Amino acid sequence: MREVAIIGIGQTPVGEHWEKSLRHLAHDAIGAAMRDAGIETADALYVGNMLSGELNGQEHLGALIADFSGLRGIEAMKVEAACGSGAAALRVGIMSVASGLNDIVLVCGIEKMTDAPGHVTTSALATAADQEYEVSQGISFVGLNALLMRRYMHEYGVSKEAFAGFTVNAHRNALTNPNAMFHSAVSEAAYARAGMIADPINLLDSSPVCDGAACVVLAPADRYRSRTQARILASAVAIDSLAVHDRRDPLVLDAAVISSQKAYAQARLTPVDIHLFELHDAFSIMSALSLEAAGFAPRGAGVQLAQHGEISLTGRIPISTMGGLKARGHPVGATGVYQVVEAVMQLTGRAGPNQVGGATVAMTQNIGGSGATVITHILGAV
Amino acid sequence: MREVAIIGIGQTPVGEHWEKSLRHLAHDAIGAAMRDAGIETADALYVGNMLSGELNGQEHLGALIADFSGLRGIEAMKVEAACGSGAAALRVGIMSVASGLNDIVLVCGIEKMTDAPGHVTTSALATAADQEYEVSQGISFVGLNALLMRRYMHEYGVSKEAFAGFTVNAHRNALTNPNAMFHSAVSEAAYARAGMIADPINLLDSSPVCDGAACVVLAPADRYRSRTQARILASAVAIDSLAVHDRRDPLVLDAAVISSQKAYAQARLTPVDIHLFELHDAFSIMSALSLEAAGFAPRGAGVQLAQHGEISLTGRIPISTMGGLKARGHPVGATGVYQVVEAVMQLTGRAGPNQVGGATVAMTQNIGGSGATVITHILGAV
Repeated sequence: MREVAIIGIGQTPVGEHWEKSLRHLAHDAIGAAMRDAGIETADALYVGNMLSGELNGQEHLGALIADFSGLRGIEAMKVEAACGSGAAALRVGIMSVASGLNDIVLVCGIEKMTDAPGHVTTSALATAADQEYEVSQGISFVGLNALLMRRYMHEYGVSKEAFAGFTVNAHRNALTNPNAMFHSAVSEAAYARAGMIADPINLLDSSPVCDGAACVVLAPADRYRSRTQARILASAVAIDSLAVHDRRDPLVLDAAVISSQKAYAQARLTPVDIHLFELHDAFSIMSALSLEAAGFAPRGAGVQLAQHGEISLTGRIPISTMGGLKARGHPVGATGVYQVVEAVMQLTGRAGPNQVGGATVAMTQNIGGSGATVITHILGAV
Repeated sequence: MREVAIIGIGQTPVGEHWEKSLRHLAHDAIGAAMRDAGIETADALYVGNMLSGELNGQEHLGALIADFSGLRGIEAMKVEAACGSGAAALRVGIMSVASGLNDIVLVCGIEKMTDAPGHVTTSALATAADQEYEVSQGISFVGLNALLMRRYMHEYGVSKEAFAGFTVNAHRNALTNPNAMFHSAVSEAAYARAGMIADPINLLDSSPVCDGAACVVLAPADRYRSRTQARILASAVAIDSLAVHDRRDPLVLDAAVISSQKAYAQARLTPVDIHLFELHDAFSIMSALSLEAAGFAPRGAGVQLAQHGEISLTGRIPISTMGGLKARGHPVGATGVYQVVEAVMQLTGRAGPNQVGGATVAMTQNIGGSGATVITHILGAV
């Protein structure tokens, strides 16, 4: 197996891109990554996307985007794992290079969500959950997460206000990320006042509907040493049931536990070795559950990390360092690639005011559904 | 890079499975393949599927199907390349094993099309084409293929009747395939009388809307010699523009040319070495164009192979040996895996009355859109 390196990164700002179509956004991110890598062509493109069929009337993004990016003739396809699609595409890209079947591989996450009416988007997002046993009962995706948050508060005696720290941290970090969707600080008082969406999840617990594209360029490490920006130390996927009621324990993300432990084993590292953790803060409750599953806090104590400032840029385990899903934004199929792009920025000292000092090991974790697919990557500095 | 072997195959009958949901169909195929391989678990599952979001309100098939098949905790994701999704998933499975990142890998193609109303299915299938430059003009996917067939007839002076041989051959072979959707012989006279769908494509030029699932089990060849049913000799993907008007030449499937030539080079074979060719006969015109692009006939002469009996089970290059997309059926995202399952049946002498005598090398070619993604595999007998 060949070691895999990241040799280029690119991203578009996250936001409401009404003036650009899906293919243009993807092309912008791919072009930026190819320029960053100093390459003019590639062997393959793997596109991470969840909802182009439902929201854009367009499947077949592999060929569409490769051709529009001037790469006619190469290998291309789309990879989907709900909101974990971006990291799933990265996983395929890593296998592609590691196997020796391709050398220069592009991984592009893309989602264009803001062109569809809100009720269409809500239905589309619910395709991440179990249609026959959950969605058919009328629950939305945010509703499922609300059930988890309510259970967490009940079981551990945690107040809703205890979750404020996740949102405050994410919005503070996004202030100085030019590619973030939101550039507005959020106070604990504002969090407490925010309108309820699905009790107990309020507007400031929730990541936004938005558009965005991000891209990384992969290559075999031994042949691209001088251009290597980061090394892939671990890549691990694990699944759980889609339906939350069918889990062993709804408050333990088993797939995140398995995926994290596999990743630590591959990289021969433990949680104390991780300098920053780009986790999947689609909702505040997912931040708490992810921190626990990945070994940064005992069961029921994830939320305390946010209360005690340990998730800030100078804390014990910085998360959402460029704003996270909450404030950078969550263009669902693109998110997993944004996380990796931001991790590479941290490892190469390009995170500007958001730099985590001395970061040489970064972990990213992208989640599909409410914990059904969990994909963990650990990246190392050169 | 590790050599990859197929150690098990499974399939459901193709048809209208109103009594089974998507997850049940997939589970049936996976269970059959795992029993055939003599395995009880797997490291990963890659699902080939095109339209579950549009037609079944369900994305996230990787985790859904892995969990429903008793494989909670493993790696899983969905791969999509329009009607080429099945072979795209196989491609990912091959990379997964070849890289050494996984050992036992399941590749399942699944599509459940018959639960949705016809106009929804027609719109969903059109997501394989270019939404902004083709579909927005009002053309359907069959309409695009009709333009290609009309152009072929005009440019080469070929009559519509000349295409009958493809349909006659496919339906004849399906008669003795218990998993085929249609068990009815079609005469040239019946073909000539068939109702027009999109002139010049009639009902008997067209593959049917249907349900089905197929599965293959992959493993590293060196560790599973005694269980190997077929060896992967080549795997190659190439893309072209989605939009037909944007092609270099609409009557040359450039992606099929590139994909075939890559595959021949990998296997160190030429067209004369291929004993059977499971091609993508979604419409008769695609059979003609594929035979030409893959090197079995010169430009404009593909249709003559059908006229002269060279595509029959005892002909020079047998195609659609178990009925093909036309008569076995075309559950779109599953088709590419059905092709490979049938090729393995031929290489292991399990094709019954449909056996191609002495077959030791088989080629499969799965196409997304009207030639935008082309994925070619060459399989060798043990």
